[in-house]
Amino acid sequence: MVKLSDLSAKNREILERQDVELPSWAFGNSGTRFRVFTTPGVPRDPFEKVSDAAQVNAYTHAASKVSLHIPWDLTDDYDALRKHAEDLGVTIGTINSNVFQDEDYKFGSLCNVNPKIRQKAIDHHKQCVDIMRKTGSKDLKIWLADGTNYPGQDSIRERQDRLAESLAEIYAELDDDMRLVLEYKFFEPAFYHTDVPDWGTSLVQCQALGERAMVVLDTGHHAPGTNIEFIVAQLLRVGRLGAFDFNSRFYADDDLIVGAADPFQLFRILNEIVAAGALDEGSPVNFMLDQCHNLEEKIPAEIRSVTNVQEMTAKALLVDRDALKEKQVAGDVLGANDILMDAFYTDVRGLLGELRESQGIDPDPMRAFMESGYLEKIRKERVGGTQASWGA
Amino acid sequence: MVKLSDLSAKNREILERQDVELPSWAFGNSGTRFRVFTTPGVPRDPFEKVSDAAQVNAYTHAASKVSLHIPWDLTDDYDALRKHAEDLGVTIGTINSNVFQDEDYKFGSLCNVNPKIRQKAIDHHKQCVDIMRKTGSKDLKIWLADGTNYPGQDSIRERQDRLAESLAEIYAELDDDMRLVLEYKFFEPAFYHTDVPDWGTSLVQCQALGERAMVVLDTGHHAPGTNIEFIVAQLLRVGRLGAFDFNSRFYADDDLIVGAADPFQLFRILNEIVAAGALDEGSPVNFMLDQCHNLEEKIPAEIRSVTNVQEMTAKALLVDRDALKEKQVAGDVLGANDILMDAFYTDVRGLLGELRESQGIDPDPMRAFMESGYLEKIRKERVGGTQASWGA
Amino acid sequence: MVKLSDLSAKNREILERQDVELPSWAFGNSGTRFRVFTTPGVPRDPFEKVSDAAQVNAYTHAASKVSLHIPWDLTDDYDALRKHAEDLGVTIGTINSNVFQDEDYKFGSLCNVNPKIRQKAIDHHKQCVDIMRKTGSKDLKIWLADGTNYPGQDSIRERQDRLAESLAEIYAELDDDMRLVLEYKFFEPAFYHTDVPDWGTSLVQCQALGERAMVVLDTGHHAPGTNIEFIVAQLLRVGRLGAFDFNSRFYADDDLIVGAADPFQLFRILNEIVAAGALDEGSPVNFMLDQCHNLEEKIPAEIRSVTNVQEMTAKALLVDRDALKEKQVAGDVLGANDILMDAFYTDVRGLLGELRESQGIDPDPMRAFMESGYLEKIRKERVGGTQASWGA
Amino acid sequence: MVKLSDLSAKNREILERQDVELPSWAFGNSGTRFRVFTTPGVPRDPFEKVSDAAQVNAYTHAASKVSLHIPWDLTDDYDALRKHAEDLGVTIGTINSNVFQDEDYKFGSLCNVNPKIRQKAIDHHKQCVDIMRKTGSKDLKIWLADGTNYPGQDSIRERQDRLAESLAEIYAELDDDMRLVLEYKFFEPAFYHTDVPDWGTSLVQCQALGERAMVVLDTGHHAPGTNIEFIVAQLLRVGRLGAFDFNSRFYADDDLIVGAADPFQLFRILNEIVAAGALDEGSPVNFMLDQCHNLEEKIPAEIRSVTNVQEMTAKALLVDRDALKEKQVAGDVLGANDILMDAFYTDVRGLLGELRESQGIDPDPMRAFMESGYLEKIRKERVGGTQASWGA
Repeated sequence: MVKLSDLSAKNREILERQDVELPSWAFGNSGTRFRVFTTPGVPRDPFEKVSDAAQVNAYTHAASKVSLHIPWDLTDDYDALRKHAEDLGVTIGTINSNVFQDEDYKFGSLCNVNPKIRQKAIDHHKQCVDIMRKTGSKDLKIWLADGTNYPGQDSIRERQDRLAESLAEIYAELDDDMRLVLEYKFFEPAFYHTDVPDWGTSLVQCQALGERAMVVLDTGHHAPGTNIEFIVAQLLRVGRLGAFDFNSRFYADDDLIVGAADPFQLFRILNEIVAAGALDEGSPVNFMLDQCHNLEEKIPAEIRSVTNVQEMTAKALLVDRDALKEKQVAGDVLGANDILMDAFYTDVRGLLGELRESQGIDPDPMRAFMESGYLEKIRKERVGGTQASWGA
Repeated sequence: MVKLSDLSAKNREILERQDVELPSWAFGNSGTRFRVFTTPGVPRDPFEKVSDAAQVNAYTHAASKVSLHIPWDLTDDYDALRKHAEDLGVTIGTINSNVFQDEDYKFGSLCNVNPKIRQKAIDHHKQCVDIMRKTGSKDLKIWLADGTNYPGQDSIRERQDRLAESLAEIYAELDDDMRLVLEYKFFEPAFYHTDVPDWGTSLVQCQALGERAMVVLDTGHHAPGTNIEFIVAQLLRVGRLGAFDFNSRFYADDDLIVGAADPFQLFRILNEIVAAGALDEGSPVNFMLDQCHNLEEKIPAEIRSVTNVQEMTAKALLVDRDALKEKQVAGDVLGANDILMDAFYTDVRGLLGELRESQGIDPDPMRAFMESGYLEKIRKERVGGTQASWGA
Repeated sequence: MVKLSDLSAKNREILERQDVELPSWAFGNSGTRFRVFTTPGVPRDPFEKVSDAAQVNAYTHAASKVSLHIPWDLTDDYDALRKHAEDLGVTIGTINSNVFQDEDYKFGSLCNVNPKIRQKAIDHHKQCVDIMRKTGSKDLKIWLADGTNYPGQDSIRERQDRLAESLAEIYAELDDDMRLVLEYKFFEPAFYHTDVPDWGTSLVQCQALGERAMVVLDTGHHAPGTNIEFIVAQLLRVGRLGAFDFNSRFYADDDLIVGAADPFQLFRILNEIVAAGALDEGSPVNFMLDQCHNLEEKIPAEIRSVTNVQEMTAKALLVDRDALKEKQVAGDVLGANDILMDAFYTDVRGLLGELRESQGIDPDPMRAFMESGYLEKIRKERVGGTQASWGA
Repeated sequence: MVKLSDLSAKNREILERQDVELPSWAFGNSGTRFRVFTTPGVPRDPFEKVSDAAQVNAYTHAASKVSLHIPWDLTDDYDALRKHAEDLGVTIGTINSNVFQDEDYKFGSLCNVNPKIRQKAIDHHKQCVDIMRKTGSKDLKIWLADGTNYPGQDSIRERQDRLAESLAEIYAELDDDMRLVLEYKFFEPAFYHTDVPDWGTSLVQCQALGERAMVVLDTGHHAPGTNIEFIVAQLLRVGRLGAFDFNSRFYADDDLIVGAADPFQLFRILNEIVAAGALDEGSPVNFMLDQCHNLEEKIPAEIRSVTNVQEMTAKALLVDRDALKEKQVAGDVLGANDILMDAFYTDVRGLLGELRESQGIDPDPMRAFMESGYLEKIRKERVGGTQASWGA
């Protein structure tokens, strides 16, 4: 049975320091185009979302930042929100813009053929930068729903040029210690072409902007069969991996709990991260969840997501890299694979329990949270008002 | 230039008789999980939907039936609705049940582990059969959103058994001249397993029910790369192809205009249909559209869909089947393919224009409708009330 | 740490009895269309293949049958081959036909438009049945490369009818205790349509033949994203799952070591098998490997494949089915999923080591085999003659 | 009926100048991993391949270059080969390297962990550059089979660094008027990771090399669902689209006749090319076929491929770009799409027949070639010797 003491001091530190940012919207209702199902007790405003997120951190010690979505998390008093967060032991992280839920954006936002709508979308991002100054956020994350549904609907090429211009105007607005991180997505909600469909496009646009523009890799945003850990390795290699949006999928952008659909894939991703030192102090990579829990309880689902990332990280840290290199050099295909699989098949839950106890928290975050009475409490308290639903 | 007179009498009759059923919900607003965009003038009740559908028929002479969705098209007076339709030259076609938009169906309907919810879903279908008696409909179409998001969430096997029991109870309710047509779908809104994911499952369930249970093939409901015309040919061969839901897709269930994404695929499908005689008088196959027009005008999009089906049918009717057979027997791969491609590359729009003129309508349905002033009229008239949106 | 004694007596027996049939061709060279790479010491005839297969069984006690491929494993003396196998503690299992490597089959075999070529292919299967009588084999496995590369090349529908006739003639040839098992494959080597592309087609053809015709599920033969465990559950439910061809894939029919690409998927498949009792005594399901080891050592790769199946089976046997059912009934999505994941994340390698020791073999089959000197021995001995390569 | 005179002078010139390079290997036998089927009369050496390629040009006036593959087309006398080509009215085009068919490349070539094997692969490319000097070729095309089959087999990241070093050494060897064009491929023959799997990776490697390194886009080398015309537009936009390898596919890298699987996709690709002026004089994009004809006659298949490219180009040239822009600006989704579809549905075969007659060749290249007696002639003459098969 592997133990915490089996880890090197450096690897133990990595696990202790590991932090996964939580999306505020994961705590509200969400759904599919067919139905948004409800869950009793979900938050009604950004303050309640932050409260719920803080629970995840309290039981895992690995989720100290909360990502906001504008305008879903608009408030009159960001100081109060910031203070509310800090009182609960968490901070405000990335600011996510939203240019896909306004009637004006029917045919796109930063890529729209209409300059007035482009300007409106650019101005929304400037507003986001203002909010960043108030919340202390350093990353502006842009995911665009822009694209077309039918060939000919708009010019693929001209939209790309407009995107470059729009992004440049936003980038210019950033303070020197802020970054623009640009997410790509294979498809949805556009069904013919998407304006930022792949990492290559995000990279090309970031290269044109400058050094503080980085690519965001959402693990659910790829074509079937795509080797995601390859992209991780490549983006780390060229110094442009800015952030992860973690989730998992069997089909399209299913937004399931990270590690739920293919835990071995998550392990391979974290293996590339560990191998590249991207969990070391000062890494430019921000690790974030981006999940929409449609059917399951929100807070427990976030806890499970965080512990899944921790478990796969622990497994990746157990890979015997010297032995692996030796087998690779020898052309021992099975031997090299065995070393990786040995780490993956090792049960690290006890090791992580030890770590948590050393941090003064319960070794089993899920059980501890479920027994805490928090869910029962919010179900009672949060009656009346409008439940925050995805897009609300 | 190919002319109407180039068609055999039989093939001309096929084109004259061709009829594509329209879904009432195609005329309301629809969208994605990110946003339902609106269009001025969309219907506010089933009567207005039928009116719009009748426009499509008026300009194409090829869309004389309207499919209803229950409860979206619930009304107190089906006689009035039926009469309204008939006054406009159309009839009520298939009745589509809906067991996916009620909070009770969060974990499924006919497959739900809870017998009370299963019974509720069964009862809904009995209500649909009642409505069929009032509207004169002969087909009850069932598409289920049932499935699970996470491995272990429920038993795949037991859900299949429950499905069989539920369907048997519904099937028993049908009159002797009614059919149950069961649709399958690869995924969405369930993201781990879907209870009727493929034609094999729909077939197995239909076989257990009896002769009046048939499979529905929605052209957007398959895994990437699936050869849909093969399934068409196989289901026709075993006598279980009950109906089509026509639409098109580049990625998942995109619900675009049929023929928009891959016209050659639509041609190949219609080629199998023509070759099997499934457009002949008395064919058991019902041809229907099932599209959700998110960005484009509703009525024109339905007109385009109908004319796309007509065009690909005309091309399929032009295939020189004797020459094709000869090349096939000779093992002349390129020669055989060339015969098919020759038909596909032939421009049949003139031929169809001739056909329409012979039917007393404009040769160009789209232009004629756009110039008719109908859109302007409904935009003015349909102010106030609640626009029917997808799911409304 | 889970121990052998944690298993119920019944579950322990399942593990003890578990047997995975080995393909003779896995021990020869294999490759891609780009290159067949060689490995020193690979067999030069069916006797040497059986010898190598017997090694896998000697070190795992879970691979007592060898599957032959005709004509690759043609020999003048099947009695000698049978005796050779028995002397080494194994038996001859399934007979696999081959109607894809003869120039005559360029346009298909059992589906060919040419009746002479169809008859030749039928006769080959009759020859296989003769061989089965000599080897004591009970299953005739048919995988067809039949299909077309271009639309129009041949009639999809007529080929299906020809297939039915050809299979009927073969089925009639079987002894009463023999089965015909029919494999399906999504695509390759045909690139437009495949004559048996999915489980539905295999099922329909088997239903037409009779009770001793069963479907073969090759885990690498599906469209991207297909939920394979669903098909397993469905085929078990309708009593038509005859056999597995185990392997794994990231993209197409990659034929990698089973469990190598997605161990969690293999676990889910075995979970359905265990839940349905398909590993119980008398199960009609034959579990077989079908892998082509291109780059790695052949015998170790088969050992790893067998132990992967054993490990995922052990995990599936550890699922707490009562607790799982309870969570499912309660609609506790996360709770139910957690029970499954708990079993998956449990390290069962120690338990299987105990089992092997109780069977008198080394707890670590791979290490024991690698240290045995067998590889060195065959590399020396098998010099001269023609290495058996895939297709040789 | 559209006529040649309906084209602008500029567009007519584009069609007249259009030239598609032919791969020498398309004229030899080819196949799948299951079987290489033979065709009577296929070439036995590079001279006969050039002769066959020249036939395609003679009947289309649109295929004046022949691409060689080294070592498949090694010869002692490149002057003679060059002269042979020129005598037949064609020239030698791109030189394609081959570092995937030697036993040494089992674990890769330019990315191999073994520096000696990397050097061998680099030296092969230097040899190719030498040959380019003799043949007058200006493009060195590199497609790598490099990759791994199992996670852990080698380091993804380090292989990428080795690739960069190897390519730099090759690039340094080029003359100032030569280019290195780097092809990417989603998968195959590597089944876990591929070292150049996507356009992003090819671009990143090219950027590191210099201005004369360009990306090659093979239309069959993408994940399912990938919008290829987007990549075309993006690579043109950043000035790095060096060449096309045209072919088509339904599933993986099927290498079918270009336009055979999805003619509308080919049209959309050519529409981006036309819109970007990439068929104008001086375009840096080289248009090439890369197909392996397994079942069909070789020369006719190349003729069909060339005419398919011509037909889709003619359709793309017919798009009314002013009207299209107007509809796009107006947000008229259906109207814009209709303009594109109108061009696609126009039958341009007559127009191209006119063009050919104006060039002094038969309006129907396929029929003219089939009636020429060339096939019968080579079937008789080319007896004895070894047929050139794919990889031979």
